[in-house]
Amino acid sequence: MTHTTVHAYAAPAPKAPLERTTVTRRALGEHDILIEIKYSGICHSDIHTVRGEWGHETFPIVPGHEIAGVVAEVGAGVTRHAPGDRVGVGCFVDSCRECDNCRAGLEQYCTGASGPVGTYAATGRDGEFTQGGYSTHIVVDENYVLRVPDGIPLDAAAPLLCAGITVYSPLAHWQAGPGKKVAVIGLGGLGHMAVKIAHAMGAEVTVLSQSLRKKDDGLRLGADHYHATSDPATFEALADGFDLILNTVSADLDLNAFLGLLRTDGVMVQLGAPENPLPVVSGSLFRRRRTLAGSMIGGIRETQEMLDFCAEHGIAADIELIDADRINEAYERVLTSDVRYRFVIDAQTI
Amino acid sequence: MTHTTVHAYAAPAPKAPLERTTVTRRALGEHDILIEIKYSGICHSDIHTVRGEWGHETFPIVPGHEIAGVVAEVGAGVTRHAPGDRVGVGCFVDSCRECDNCRAGLEQYCTGASGPVGTYAATGRDGEFTQGGYSTHIVVDENYVLRVPDGIPLDAAAPLLCAGITVYSPLAHWQAGPGKKVAVIGLGGLGHMAVKIAHAMGAEVTVLSQSLRKKDDGLRLGADHYHATSDPATFEALADGFDLILNTVSADLDLNAFLGLLRTDGVMVQLGAPENPLPVVSGSLFRRRRTLAGSMIGGIRETQEMLDFCAEHGIAADIELIDADRINEAYERVLTSDVRYRFVIDAQTI
Repeated sequence: MTHTTVHAYAAPAPKAPLERTTVTRRALGEHDILIEIKYSGICHSDIHTVRGEWGHETFPIVPGHEIAGVVAEVGAGVTRHAPGDRVGVGCFVDSCRECDNCRAGLEQYCTGASGPVGTYAATGRDGEFTQGGYSTHIVVDENYVLRVPDGIPLDAAAPLLCAGITVYSPLAHWQAGPGKKVAVIGLGGLGHMAVKIAHAMGAEVTVLSQSLRKKDDGLRLGADHYHATSDPATFEALADGFDLILNTVSADLDLNAFLGLLRTDGVMVQLGAPENPLPVVSGSLFRRRRTLAGSMIGGIRETQEMLDFCAEHGIAADIELIDADRINEAYERVLTSDVRYRFVIDAQTI
Repeated sequence: MTHTTVHAYAAPAPKAPLERTTVTRRALGEHDILIEIKYSGICHSDIHTVRGEWGHETFPIVPGHEIAGVVAEVGAGVTRHAPGDRVGVGCFVDSCRECDNCRAGLEQYCTGASGPVGTYAATGRDGEFTQGGYSTHIVVDENYVLRVPDGIPLDAAAPLLCAGITVYSPLAHWQAGPGKKVAVIGLGGLGHMAVKIAHAMGAEVTVLSQSLRKKDDGLRLGADHYHATSDPATFEALADGFDLILNTVSADLDLNAFLGLLRTDGVMVQLGAPENPLPVVSGSLFRRRRTLAGSMIGGIRETQEMLDFCAEHGIAADIELIDADRINEAYERVLTSDVRYRFVIDAQTI
């Protein structure tokens, strides 16, 4: 069996609009799964990548690493999934499987020569350039394919594969739960999932947003409190108050003002990747033994745990479903934060 | 009983040389202890303070918060110490005693209205301006006085009260010990104590110093490895290698290069207070779920634990003992890192 040609939306060159095209998928290896993609979320990373802002030079690129679909066919040695299964694929499709991190289920931090193999715009261990989820089908090794529980609609499940796990992992790692006060900076794709998941974990959740524009939404999603960061009084009222703050915002913020909201031994987790370095005043940290940490998506085992957790708690992403011919328009709206809270492409329209 | 007048060295005005003078000490309250100071360490903070760099405006200032001496007299209600006891006083002499942090033995992070009351250049809860250890005597509440174990010479004990606890606390909190790889940036007053204590805790210790100039010293103090940070190869060879890094340097460093030396879930602790904010690249943190934390001295219980630990392991500071009339000269030498590794004033010469 040779490669299969499938439909996809790709950026032909840096900054060029995405257009309908075809890509090839490898023949099914022994442990491979052919997935019929049903839905694909649009992540801000997709936009950075296809605009060449993160330095990729191999084009065309088919973005998309929030993939939900159904198993169409499996390789001879596949045991984890069967045709008809509802499945998902997130930000990586392979890793070295041998380093300490891979063995510990932290494949996202794989220290192998190639690191985790990105779902798109990466070179796989077979030497092939990976192409992502804005497509009708994809072939992925069974060990990097997640099970989507029946309780979650496939379209609303797609964004869990990146936005969901990106916030679930730090909330779990730094033990959000009953008795803990958690703040979420920014109510976008990541932020709205952070509110839902932290609330479901039992934490007391506060949204810190630039304005009160989305306050009703925030409270509906599960926040207990909602404050505008444009109001200096917010920083006085909430000083020394939080055990954990997730910063989902990629824009330049005065991080020290937010660090001042952590109580002793509190942790702020940086999830976005702002263009400029974060100017951290050392006193913001040492006056209360505070911590600034970073976190990046999650491992395969933890991603499955997150999906099961979401199903158990009736959580999924709030999405706006679009046809594929609206991807470029959706990109513009993502850049102005004009989406509540994640665009998902209907793969039938690709 | 009224105030007692005692000899001291004080800075009469910002940036003025220190000169011999007198200060008054309060009459012994019920829980107070009059300490005959034997030795007083010179900390870089002393210099910042008397030069007005940290914004203090009340002069004269008697610096000194690394105090070792002998109990001369005790108040009627004192139970913790008796005349003749070998004792020490560190960076603070009081705190609110009521906040969560005080109750938890984290008085250094006291959230009371005045915070922890500094040993000098602070206003005590009685409204009096505190004057520090470059003096023959000091009066301190018994709850803020430490016991110096017999095994530690008093002169070498003095620097433990600030430099020692400043490194012990993060080493203990982030669990330096057998199987852990610890790096210490900078081999000065703090750094040389960090090497000794981390080694005694059983960790594998690496010194990261600008040059190899002090390499023999570093290995003698207990380091297993010693690398020059002026050599770019150091950062390649040691990438992803450490569980814990203590940054004892207050100068501007490329912190991101050092963050790259942390393994997954590794922690860098910032101990110094550089003048400029630290420009942290978010990717330095999130690529390995790394953490940048701050830590400030230690609580009373932990300071006693540190002194007992040092006695048990035969550890104390490497010092250069000076007469009081050489304080100003010593300050100049501290500013050029020309001391191995801490100046201590012989209080008999004050």
